[in-house]
Amino acid sequence: MAFRTPYLMFLGDAPDELAAKTAIGVRDWRPEWCVGQLRLDGCKADLKLPDMSPAEAAAAGCGTLIVGIANRGGIIPDNWVDPIVQCIENGMDVASGLHRKLASNPKIAEAAEKHGRTLTDVRHPTRDFDVASGKKRTGKRLLTIGTDVSVGKMYTSLAIWRELESRGVKATFAATGQTGIFIAGNGVSVDAVIADFISGAAEWLSPDADADHWHVVEGQGSLYHTSYAGVTLGLIHGSQPDALVICHDAARKTARGLGDKPLPSFQEVIDAGLWAARNVNPDVKVAGISINTKSLDDAAAEKLLKETEDSMGLPTVDAVRTGVAKIVDTL
Amino acid sequence: MAFRTPYLMFLGDAPDELAAKTAIGVRDWRPEWCVGQLRLDGCKADLKLPDMSPAEAAAAGCGTLIVGIANRGGIIPDNWVDPIVQCIENGMDVASGLHRKLASNPKIAEAAEKHGRTLTDVRHPTRDFDVASGKKRTGKRLLTIGTDVSVGKMYTSLAIWRELESRGVKATFAATGQTGIFIAGNGVSVDAVIADFISGAAEWLSPDADADHWHVVEGQGSLYHTSYAGVTLGLIHGSQPDALVICHDAARKTARGLGDKPLPSFQEVIDAGLWAARNVNPDVKVAGISINTKSLDDAAAEKLLKETEDSMGLPTVDAVRTGVAKIVDTL
Repeated sequence: MAFRTPYLMFLGDAPDELAAKTAIGVRDWRPEWCVGQLRLDGCKADLKLPDMSPAEAAAAGCGTLIVGIANRGGIIPDNWVDPIVQCIENGMDVASGLHRKLASNPKIAEAAEKHGRTLTDVRHPTRDFDVASGKKRTGKRLLTIGTDVSVGKMYTSLAIWRELESRGVKATFAATGQTGIFIAGNGVSVDAVIADFISGAAEWLSPDADADHWHVVEGQGSLYHTSYAGVTLGLIHGSQPDALVICHDAARKTARGLGDKPLPSFQEVIDAGLWAARNVNPDVKVAGISINTKSLDDAAAEKLLKETEDSMGLPTVDAVRTGVAKIVDTL
Repeated sequence: MAFRTPYLMFLGDAPDELAAKTAIGVRDWRPEWCVGQLRLDGCKADLKLPDMSPAEAAAAGCGTLIVGIANRGGIIPDNWVDPIVQCIENGMDVASGLHRKLASNPKIAEAAEKHGRTLTDVRHPTRDFDVASGKKRTGKRLLTIGTDVSVGKMYTSLAIWRELESRGVKATFAATGQTGIFIAGNGVSVDAVIADFISGAAEWLSPDADADHWHVVEGQGSLYHTSYAGVTLGLIHGSQPDALVICHDAARKTARGLGDKPLPSFQEVIDAGLWAARNVNPDVKVAGISINTKSLDDAAAEKLLKETEDSMGLPTVDAVRTGVAKIVDTL
């Protein structure tokens, strides 16, 4: 997949900003691709982009309608269908992050067929993968791993990718989840591939490259999260990282969705990550720690970053507050 | 799924015994369910069962035709279709371990529809799974893990299950691969589920049970095999093992399918397995080591088992040569 840009961002009747989290991520990281938003009555989210009808968006050159909002059960509500069909009629492709496939709606499927437009469901792999070969590839790879799920691995990966590019280093962001895929314009939802092919998909995502090129691979799950650790291990083995970056959310005290299960320590995450990565790359290093300190005031955030840096002996940043330059300096 | 027994074993025109490996496993572990074999011209495999036509098998009470042979690309050759259809016409269900689904063949699909028979493809999950909850379940669980793939984890698991049953202990064999599923009559091909649900499938496979009941869970892959380790880790987390048994093949020197990659040591496999399992069960123990010594003569096998037992300090058996009593003694 490789979406036609720019994007029209579909917000539907999102009940709050949180429901539009994916669209917000795309707007933040690809402002140059986001030319307008399409909102329905009752929409409580706002990307601060011009509101556009399908015809206006087409006139503005939009190539793809991005359905980047969450919905109960991942279904396509009836009131979304007409505006989506109108975008197709106006020449746009549609890319969706919903669980339910776009083509499962007969009107949307018919319109796409009739107008020769592409429907892409980024949560569903659009190709088959080989079983991982384990063969050493050329180029460099960085992978983010976490103390838990949803602790800022995507944000940190994107910040590192941008920092590398700003320094003139050849770099590619390898997206492994829906928001990242809209931002990269391609990628694979690795948690949605068949279990046998997790590491094969990760190999495909970060192929041979120039010796001085960095693939910055978006991490998923956590080796300690008992619901998703298989995805994480396959991703580590397939991405053959030269560098790991440990991500954490200062507000997280217990594993998300697992009751009162405590989080692992930084040292446990480092040890497990290096154990897994050394199986494919004996020279792997931990390049730093990235902590989301949004829940802390400036003084508390500074203190935590400093203390972590001192105790762990690793560059420690907040990708938002401090940027990731300190980590990129080590690469 | 729960197949109607007894079975008619379909061997097709298997070019050698190896192609019939699955059928041989079923015959070995469920002789009471295997009443006949159906072979076509040129078949070079033989289960030493009575050759039966579909009509003869139906008369003998067969409930399910088991397609337990491997075929290039996992497809259904043209010359298999008529005999499979004849079994359906004679009232049998069909269960297949091929990659290609039975219903992808129109004649087979039509016959099943017309006669109200069930087609089951054991490589394809027949239900959806929840994301793993990580909640502690009642009952005891044993899981086999390996130094590599295909080193005897299924065979060892089956032998332990039988040994437990023979001692009057309540035990269930939880099948995670195609041969195991035919033997158990149910199960899940965990390597074929969507990556996010590996550990959820393993939880489903070994649900709450009586405090003195053992689920003996068939292991898959290896934490050190870079193609499949994600499946292995998800299976460990989902099965919450109280006991691990380490499996190895004395003839295996390098990881299967990964070139000259060396195998991990027993200690590495034990350390990694305990690390993973302690995340869900702090009290997990290694109950023993099971080595396939088929490649060795009696003296060499005895020496290897003795040396391994002494150096590792764990009961060490060959599930075929010595049986697994020594391991079951520790449970």
